[in-house]
Amino acid sequence: MSDFILIHKEKNCSARLGKLITPRGQIDTPVFMPVGTQATVKALTVRDLDECGAQIILSNAYHLLLRPGPEIIKNAGGLHSFMGWKKPILTDSGGYQVFSLSLLRKVTDDGVAFQSHIDGQKHFLTPESVIEFQTLLGSDIIMPLDECVHYPCTEDHARIAANRTAAWAIRSKLSFNQLAASNNNRKLFGIVQGATFEHLRKESSNRIVDIGFDGYAIGGLSVGEPKDLLYNITQLTTQFLPEDKPRYLMGVGLPEDIIESVILGIDMFDCVAPTRYGRNGTAFTSTGKITVRNSIYAKDLKPLDEECNCYCCVNFSRSYLRHLFNTEEMLGPRLVSLHNVYFYQQLMRQIHKAITEDNLIEFKKKFFEKYFSEEIY
Amino acid sequence: MSDFILIHKEKNCSARLGKLITPRGQIDTPVFMPVGTQATVKALTVRDLDECGAQIILSNAYHLLLRPGPEIIKNAGGLHSFMGWKKPILTDSGGYQVFSLSLLRKVTDDGVAFQSHIDGQKHFLTPESVIEFQTLLGSDIIMPLDECVHYPCTEDHARIAANRTAAWAIRSKLSFNQLAASNNNRKLFGIVQGATFEHLRKESSNRIVDIGFDGYAIGGLSVGEPKDLLYNITQLTTQFLPEDKPRYLMGVGLPEDIIESVILGIDMFDCVAPTRYGRNGTAFTSTGKITVRNSIYAKDLKPLDEECNCYCCVNFSRSYLRHLFNTEEMLGPRLVSLHNVYFYQQLMRQIHKAITEDNLIEFKKKFFEKYFSEEIY
Repeated sequence: MSDFILIHKEKNCSARLGKLITPRGQIDTPVFMPVGTQATVKALTVRDLDECGAQIILSNAYHLLLRPGPEIIKNAGGLHSFMGWKKPILTDSGGYQVFSLSLLRKVTDDGVAFQSHIDGQKHFLTPESVIEFQTLLGSDIIMPLDECVHYPCTEDHARIAANRTAAWAIRSKLSFNQLAASNNNRKLFGIVQGATFEHLRKESSNRIVDIGFDGYAIGGLSVGEPKDLLYNITQLTTQFLPEDKPRYLMGVGLPEDIIESVILGIDMFDCVAPTRYGRNGTAFTSTGKITVRNSIYAKDLKPLDEECNCYCCVNFSRSYLRHLFNTEEMLGPRLVSLHNVYFYQQLMRQIHKAITEDNLIEFKKKFFEKYFSEEIY
Repeated sequence: MSDFILIHKEKNCSARLGKLITPRGQIDTPVFMPVGTQATVKALTVRDLDECGAQIILSNAYHLLLRPGPEIIKNAGGLHSFMGWKKPILTDSGGYQVFSLSLLRKVTDDGVAFQSHIDGQKHFLTPESVIEFQTLLGSDIIMPLDECVHYPCTEDHARIAANRTAAWAIRSKLSFNQLAASNNNRKLFGIVQGATFEHLRKESSNRIVDIGFDGYAIGGLSVGEPKDLLYNITQLTTQFLPEDKPRYLMGVGLPEDIIESVILGIDMFDCVAPTRYGRNGTAFTSTGKITVRNSIYAKDLKPLDEECNCYCCVNFSRSYLRHLFNTEEMLGPRLVSLHNVYFYQQLMRQIHKAITEDNLIEFKKKFFEKYFSEEIY
């Protein structure tokens, strides 16, 4: 039996309900994974995450490699016990961060050399070392090393990166299989690259699918391209991915992006938006984004979102939250981050319900009408 | 019947167990009040405080007057509903902050003029306006405006300040009584001043007690004086205070100060130490203070305190906490603040038990042996 079970296919679009079975429990898809870059979803405890209904979180191999480093996580018995999170964890390979954060990087077919953005220390990542590190972390879903390109980039550059990603994917799978005895049903996903070039996306999809993985990620999007290009490439790529495996759109996105992409057949998402916006005092609500510092909220006794049942909305007013941000109290970022993560999880629950009822297109229409109805402060 | 009930007097020292009845519930004394300067105990939610066992918190009228200001708190229906805390709140008068934080202050017998340390705006506080503001806040225990002096200060200066404090105390009580109809059993405490001069302390105590208050605070200590002077003046002053009213040692203190002062007959404490130390990564534990950033904790899988049952100690290791501080993750200050507030509440529970068993002197000995046994990192 497959570890990904399709429960229901929406009648009016490509959305699906599924169950992904991992070493640490089942995940109901479509799923949004809050991002715990440095072994913590910023400002939140694992109890907060549980209470929001998070089923799985993402953590970043690049950051964990630099701090605290493999020895300290190994000493703790892996990432789960280090950070106290008992449910599944997906770790990315660090590829994206190497290409966006690190200094003096040099890519060869063998791997990528770079200097830490923190202390300048030299590191060398290979497809194999990346699999080994994520195995040490105890990840439930492992992502292979890939080469990411910026937007925009030339076709030549995109082709070279996609080819290298495919070659690395083969080595990653070999390495993963060699470690399989200790793998305990953990998953290895493949990553499709190809930037915004349709034929490269098709070619990359076919090569990655031919190698064969437990799930397929669409990488290299949400890097600054226009929205229509994000949706078009997602739609295009999805049709080359097998129906019976989970599809993961990396780094996406805002609530509207998630709804659109679920409609296109995407099952998994991650994004820093809920916590990053939360730290800056912007809340996602059913009536759109609101910036709690705004003076119009000075005496507003309503919760951030009148439809929300999170700890923040049940207990605190916009007036109080504005005061917390004005006085730079840590409780402000904490409460708005909590609300935003809850809002995302609640959105996924609403999406599940709509798919079950073959009603997702209508849900999207109603959600957007309300979400984009008010002026955004 | 009095609103302060003495439950038990320790046989071997001056410690007492009591119950203080306030508009929002009974408080078991001796009690430690976590400090919520700006309508939030820094980094903690009211749920965290509940779970630590906090019975009452302190908030600062000076800070609340400046931000968010009376209008916004009044609009929320008072401080309790503004910040979501349902148990008692004691508010200080702002006197201490006016004398330690504000700019260009000018004290006259009428009151004190000062400029906000935030935006330079001019304010004028009188004993009456301070009572009115705390009534607006909905405080359960109100502190009158007093004049604080620095340590060291001249005897002349200390005498003038103590005299003015006594004169203001009379006006405060009159003002409080005029507002009594809306007071709903809230308390007004008197504040003894006199710096470190014994005869001034005696004189101030007698004058304040003669006016008659619901409880008596010892102000002007914990301002930089040596420990023996803190204890001596506390002991001296306490003997001039009536036995049947609660005694509050303002701004004290570290765990050792609290134990020593309970032995001298003090019933109430407040201090920023648990949250301020927590934000900086210093934890109070049964074996002394530890600085979690220290490299000796890099692979230490023990909790902060092996005897502690707080959320932090049950779930997270020193190794993980050190990582959080090293990577400047907000969860670090949050978890160590939570632990420290819990540690203080747990200390008070231990003190209660020891008083009940007439065993406080022995408890102190054992606590100190352990607390001061290890080298402090």
